[in-house]
Amino acid sequence: MADEMADFGVVGLAVMGRNLALNVESRGYTVAIFNRSYEKTADLAQKHADKHFVPAKTVADFVKSIKKPRRIMMMVKAGAPTDATIDELVPLLDKGDILIDGGNTYFEDTIARNKKLAASGINFIGTGVSGGELGALQGPSMMPGGQKEAYDLVEPIFKEIAAKAPEDGKPTVSYVGPDGAGHYVKMVHNGIEYGDMELIAESYDLLHRVLGLSADELAATFADWNKGELDSYLIEITADILQQKDDMGSGKPIVDMILDAAGNKGTGKWSSQSALEVSAPQSLITESVYARYLSAMKEDRVAASKVLAGPEFTFEGDVEATKEDIRKALYFGKIMSYAQGFDQLRMASEHFDWDLPFGELAQLWRAGAIIRASFLQRITDAYDANPGIHNLLLDPYFEGIVEEYQTAARKVVALAVTAGVPAPSLSAAVAYYDGYRSEVLPANLIQAQRDYFGAHTYERVDKDRGEMFHYTWYEEA
Amino acid sequence: MADEMADFGVVGLAVMGRNLALNVESRGYTVAIFNRSYEKTADLAQKHADKHFVPAKTVADFVKSIKKPRRIMMMVKAGAPTDATIDELVPLLDKGDILIDGGNTYFEDTIARNKKLAASGINFIGTGVSGGELGALQGPSMMPGGQKEAYDLVEPIFKEIAAKAPEDGKPTVSYVGPDGAGHYVKMVHNGIEYGDMELIAESYDLLHRVLGLSADELAATFADWNKGELDSYLIEITADILQQKDDMGSGKPIVDMILDAAGNKGTGKWSSQSALEVSAPQSLITESVYARYLSAMKEDRVAASKVLAGPEFTFEGDVEATKEDIRKALYFGKIMSYAQGFDQLRMASEHFDWDLPFGELAQLWRAGAIIRASFLQRITDAYDANPGIHNLLLDPYFEGIVEEYQTAARKVVALAVTAGVPAPSLSAAVAYYDGYRSEVLPANLIQAQRDYFGAHTYERVDKDRGEMFHYTWYEEA
Repeated sequence: MADEMADFGVVGLAVMGRNLALNVESRGYTVAIFNRSYEKTADLAQKHADKHFVPAKTVADFVKSIKKPRRIMMMVKAGAPTDATIDELVPLLDKGDILIDGGNTYFEDTIARNKKLAASGINFIGTGVSGGELGALQGPSMMPGGQKEAYDLVEPIFKEIAAKAPEDGKPTVSYVGPDGAGHYVKMVHNGIEYGDMELIAESYDLLHRVLGLSADELAATFADWNKGELDSYLIEITADILQQKDDMGSGKPIVDMILDAAGNKGTGKWSSQSALEVSAPQSLITESVYARYLSAMKEDRVAASKVLAGPEFTFEGDVEATKEDIRKALYFGKIMSYAQGFDQLRMASEHFDWDLPFGELAQLWRAGAIIRASFLQRITDAYDANPGIHNLLLDPYFEGIVEEYQTAARKVVALAVTAGVPAPSLSAAVAYYDGYRSEVLPANLIQAQRDYFGAHTYERVDKDRGEMFHYTWYEEA
Repeated sequence: MADEMADFGVVGLAVMGRNLALNVESRGYTVAIFNRSYEKTADLAQKHADKHFVPAKTVADFVKSIKKPRRIMMMVKAGAPTDATIDELVPLLDKGDILIDGGNTYFEDTIARNKKLAASGINFIGTGVSGGELGALQGPSMMPGGQKEAYDLVEPIFKEIAAKAPEDGKPTVSYVGPDGAGHYVKMVHNGIEYGDMELIAESYDLLHRVLGLSADELAATFADWNKGELDSYLIEITADILQQKDDMGSGKPIVDMILDAAGNKGTGKWSSQSALEVSAPQSLITESVYARYLSAMKEDRVAASKVLAGPEFTFEGDVEATKEDIRKALYFGKIMSYAQGFDQLRMASEHFDWDLPFGELAQLWRAGAIIRASFLQRITDAYDANPGIHNLLLDPYFEGIVEEYQTAARKVVALAVTAGVPAPSLSAAVAYYDGYRSEVLPANLIQAQRDYFGAHTYERVDKDRGEMFHYTWYEEA
């Protein structure tokens, strides 16, 4: 096997890289493997001695063992480790070789690396990989960006290792756009994931704190929701999580033993920072990032909880009806979040001149991705029916369902606000819906204030857009 | 007058620079003035021939005309024009000279410029200047950051030109911290300004759309509010704006002729992007930035308003009582916004190692600044009483008032949500309050999900912080 030339190379054999290498190999390819410390390389090769791996002790041996044009995928930490890996590899590569970054890299870094490497004839593909450890092994959702002609040489392998959508069997990978487009789309995917998780957490909190559901009832509720239009990986694992017991013997549900201080790896933050940059009103994802930050301030909250009183409140409504309202509010919130996320993608596509294929993006999240959900087929359908649609809320399906579910969403937000249970993302969903469908917003007053104190000028309702006016608010000095 | 050496120099004579130069001169200083095009320099010198200005045609003459160590203030556009001005000036300066940037500069640029110029012995002060055109002329609020020993040489002039707080006559300028600290504080000041303006706009919208107040009633309401605890410049000008008539003859209130598409100069955006960076949950300001973005999507909203229906709603409450609830909700929202803004400053101070003087900051916004308000004295008092306070909500005054006003805030948000009028910032205020005072948030579920799909690990409620655990959620492959 040592003489065999490899079809594909994987650098970085932590759990994601290891599983991805196993996935590629399982499709009939010979895979060169390399890791900074040889232990992991040896371990993978030994544990799978029957498989077509070509383990390498040095970067040089690794590169030499791969057929040209080389297809090498880096599965290393984003940031400095990625730069270090590139610096080691590049002197050994030939023109036309294809370097693929499968890490959670900031898209601006990918743009810069693509540009820099292109100057020396190396193709650079930045690809989002979603699905966690299991996805990497069994079939992730992939969002590649970079040179199209280089992607074409990688596509056959990517299509084989990707997940297949249950609706039509299509592989969940597709060319996204130039340079940083793939990592941008993955970043927004992660932002949407933050939103989905926060919406679920707020719903869980309301079911728990307001309706008083027990652990078993909570698990049953999410399991039940997963059978309907909320059918998705995240709802499914929520139901699973809620019925599992502590593994350290307390006898309680494990979820009650987990500290309520959420971590993050920065992709939700980047997503919101970029939305702010491209002027996309992406409030729901941002609220979910802030909710994680606030959760992490555990000591502050414990101190505040002893000082700051809430409202007097006793729930006197109908538990079953309110449960159903919460389900509808969650779906309503999810639709607002995706409408905002796709609006961000539209605005980013213009900003960076990427020409992103919106319908295709929803398509390739239908399986493999953490946010996989039967709901995504609705988005694919919306873009199929109208590729130029400006906002998902204008699609007949989404328009109909949000009009119908808005009553429940409004009831649930009013309930949360009255009960004193925080629902920042559900609140943002309703505020966005009402803002987006407002022909007139009170920003006329804001423009007047800006002109008053800073002479920033304003447009008029009876004049063309772009024609600016200034009012003499007070006697000039 | 041509032989007279100047005490101070001003570069950039657009309205802010011109007014600032007039302000400095009026305190008995001789001021060298320079502008890229000589016209503005000549105009200022000629219109004020009796004053002590030293107009210069070239940068060299300008620099030569100022006493050493030179104190030169740049009032030019942030970004490339600032760099161009620095590049022109620096070769003509001597070690120990002090260059001051009074523009709305991004704080990271100020950090970089301070570092670069320090290497050649030039002191660089980045100072926030708030108060608009009138403030620059009559007394702005100033937030200087940079070398402390250089600031000490500028302070006598700054203290004279700054506004004076009505409470105690103190000038609204004070040393903020090293390098970019001054511009950072000004950035958060502007973010808070965005929040204040959005809270006012939402209140106005509710008074208008839900309660049906006329233009005159709206003006009277804000004038009335300005007499109480909301007493502030922005409420005052709102009352003034609402009673002014169109200057183009429609006969309508001017505010009704102004297009509801808000502009922005980027400082609110930066403020939110930085909050995301330093992990500060600053949701209210961010919602106000997004509200401006959504307002700017006028064509999209007009199209959506024809398609997306709102709720069935008729207001049947008590108008006067609801007006008072809205007033209380606005004050409640304002307190949440400042609590978030000061928490952001606390976290940024740690992040950048600045040791910001929090109480002093509220102090120097009490007059001159766009956000000046009698309310700021309460913040100064809170930090005087407890300099190490972690969050303003824990101060007895703020704790008491938000507990009292929460009922009104909850009612108003529930009303907005039920009526279909967007209130993103008021909603964020209530969600933040309830999140901050929650001993337990549903982030335990988020941590469980992250561990489930990504093995991200979690902390436990019965173990020390920082000790991480992983659960075997499913049979590993």
